[in-house]
Amino acid sequence: MAESNFVELAKNAKAASKKLASISTEIKNKVLLNIAQSLENNRDRIFEANNKDLKEAETLVKNGELSSSIFNRLKLNENKMRDMIKGVVDIYELDDPIGKILLQRELDTGLVLTKKSCPIGVLGIIFEARPDVITQISALAIKSSNAVILKGGKESANTNRVIMEVIQTALNEVPEFPKNVLTQVFSRDDVAQMLQQDKYIDLIIPRGGNSLVKFIKENTKIPVLGHADGICHIFVDESADLEKAKRVVVDAKTQYPSACNSVETLLIHEKFSGKDKLLEAVKQAGVEIVFNPESWHKEYSDKILSCKVVSSLDEAIEHINEFSSGHTESIITENRENAEIFMNNVDSAGVYHNVSTRFADGFRYGFGAEVGISTNKTHARGPVGLEGLTIYKYTLQGYGDIVEDYAEGIKTFKHRDLL
Amino acid sequence: MAESNFVELAKNAKAASKKLASISTEIKNKVLLNIAQSLENNRDRIFEANNKDLKEAETLVKNGELSSSIFNRLKLNENKMRDMIKGVVDIYELDDPIGKILLQRELDTGLVLTKKSCPIGVLGIIFEARPDVITQISALAIKSSNAVILKGGKESANTNRVIMEVIQTALNEVPEFPKNVLTQVFSRDDVAQMLQQDKYIDLIIPRGGNSLVKFIKENTKIPVLGHADGICHIFVDESADLEKAKRVVVDAKTQYPSACNSVETLLIHEKFSGKDKLLEAVKQAGVEIVFNPESWHKEYSDKILSCKVVSSLDEAIEHINEFSSGHTESIITENRENAEIFMNNVDSAGVYHNVSTRFADGFRYGFGAEVGISTNKTHARGPVGLEGLTIYKYTLQGYGDIVEDYAEGIKTFKHRDLL
Repeated sequence: MAESNFVELAKNAKAASKKLASISTEIKNKVLLNIAQSLENNRDRIFEANNKDLKEAETLVKNGELSSSIFNRLKLNENKMRDMIKGVVDIYELDDPIGKILLQRELDTGLVLTKKSCPIGVLGIIFEARPDVITQISALAIKSSNAVILKGGKESANTNRVIMEVIQTALNEVPEFPKNVLTQVFSRDDVAQMLQQDKYIDLIIPRGGNSLVKFIKENTKIPVLGHADGICHIFVDESADLEKAKRVVVDAKTQYPSACNSVETLLIHEKFSGKDKLLEAVKQAGVEIVFNPESWHKEYSDKILSCKVVSSLDEAIEHINEFSSGHTESIITENRENAEIFMNNVDSAGVYHNVSTRFADGFRYGFGAEVGISTNKTHARGPVGLEGLTIYKYTLQGYGDIVEDYAEGIKTFKHRDLL
Repeated sequence: MAESNFVELAKNAKAASKKLASISTEIKNKVLLNIAQSLENNRDRIFEANNKDLKEAETLVKNGELSSSIFNRLKLNENKMRDMIKGVVDIYELDDPIGKILLQRELDTGLVLTKKSCPIGVLGIIFEARPDVITQISALAIKSSNAVILKGGKESANTNRVIMEVIQTALNEVPEFPKNVLTQVFSRDDVAQMLQQDKYIDLIIPRGGNSLVKFIKENTKIPVLGHADGICHIFVDESADLEKAKRVVVDAKTQYPSACNSVETLLIHEKFSGKDKLLEAVKQAGVEIVFNPESWHKEYSDKILSCKVVSSLDEAIEHINEFSSGHTESIITENRENAEIFMNNVDSAGVYHNVSTRFADGFRYGFGAEVGISTNKTHARGPVGLEGLTIYKYTLQGYGDIVEDYAEGIKTFKHRDLL
């Protein structure tokens, strides 16, 4: 897309976002149900478009230009279609995150400050070959009154195009809903342009592999919500219970090895007597164990586990704070004090005690929907629910109040909380 | 400072921040009182250093290399010294923002998720000639358990150096308090290096004029908390009360014209009958009024006011959303519905009704201390208190819990809130 066209598109999204800010929960929910219905009614059309993408992708896989894991993610089947539609209905059922009163304070008699949640504005979403991301992000954006510009992977372009058409038809059936809330772009060049529009786009959410996220973080001044690496650790302390250690480590490595919350490095206290039995159990589960300092910053996303023997809790904490990506870490110990020290001093979004790292997930946390998992140190951290797509504004209601009265001591602030 | 030295310094600050994360409220408060005491005991030394700076600055002012307003901000007097010390005591008195439980949820029996506030990590502060920023930011950082690297203006280098020495002496008297929590750097080159340390510095807070803030935002990938421009608007609606309009506009423009929350553009509804009387009152207050579209994006910081006549509430809202810096805007109206529409649709940190824009301030909002005012759309917006220097982490406490049990349907999540 020509630069001027992209700017125009971003401007329109911004204008739509201003209109969205005052849209009612009822209209948003009506739109969400309409989308679910429209997806249901157009299953065949969507499968057809997906088959077209799959055919083209098959050739790429044969030529070694596309991995089979990407191919699998691209493929829609009955189950995925059902989950996709259910995901929209789930978001319909969640509380509206907008307009929540977070603070209400009388600064002085009749001078009332209110802090209220409101949308962020325009989201830029860049995702790889997972067509269900469109419906999920569109629904999340609508529920949180944000406009969104989506750029999907080229492998799923046909599927993405048809899904967006189906969604737009559903939106058009609700005339009160503003135009230009959802926009899709397709070219690689559009990504570069999106990353430059810090005047119109308020938050970028990348949904994809490390290299995509890293590239985005390196190339934009817009805040980015997400995580590049997922290098999670488990520390098995001196006093760990062997059975818990075995269960948790095997689950964290093998339950879904390519997930970002899978464990990558196992630290074992040198005085833990169950060390050999633990390692034996991990190997039995089909996991290759690597003792090599060069593996400490590796995310295998596979049944391979880095391992290091440490001489103290402190050494474990220091190792984690040095090599972790700040995602999720767990300590296995029967010593409560050590668990406390670990959870206080490890600087990651999730710090667990006697639990598998695989629990780091918005649905498991009970958020109802997940925007993504963030390793940022500002705004939102860990699994992010709808709340992560909101910010707040302050309203102040008075009767001609001026600061001069307070500066001159004619009036004084009361600061009485009303909530 | 050589690049390798700066990296070392930033690394040490990061290491200090990890130790700070588990420091008790008692120790932090002890340190804060010690600092206040130490400043009190070293008033003469600080004034002496400040006189040295003032002497050098005087020559610069004479040669036209330094503005007299910067000279005034540089100058410490008895009042400013008292406020500086009082500011530290005020922060001592505030609640500890760290370790607050924000959510506690039983995911399943005996599997408890806790969301707890924690420090961000390392702050980078870049400020101009206001030596009181050092004591304020140091106290805020200590209370919120963050480490900080400070870079002040070169005009106040002597004052800054002595104040930091006094603070460090106070810190050293509390052996439990970690080393390297506060570091000061001095050269212009250090700013460039600070902006590059996104591995070690988590948040940059600029305290100074537009050009400083703009430069910083343009040149770093680290999140920046603050605002560049402060282009605030007042819209006087058709049904405005003339007396309220006069009071509010005059206060917002003249009470402290160089403040970021002063009004810069006045929008008047064409059907507002009091228009001439309002403008007359504003002129009487010594304000120059400019009717010129080129002035719409200007921040005068002086007794000059841009003015535009608009034909509707919508036009006023559109003008503001186009030209505002997203700081603070006010509507003067007796029409409650119009006030609601204005406050919902204007996308700024503060949206007021019948109130002067000058109220946008952390102390006036009752936050007890102010980190700065943010026009960001993520993390923190508007006047930011101590809370803006915190983020959160999730702890999960269990007994060997694994995800496989839930994936296989052996167990199901309960998601029962405990708080």
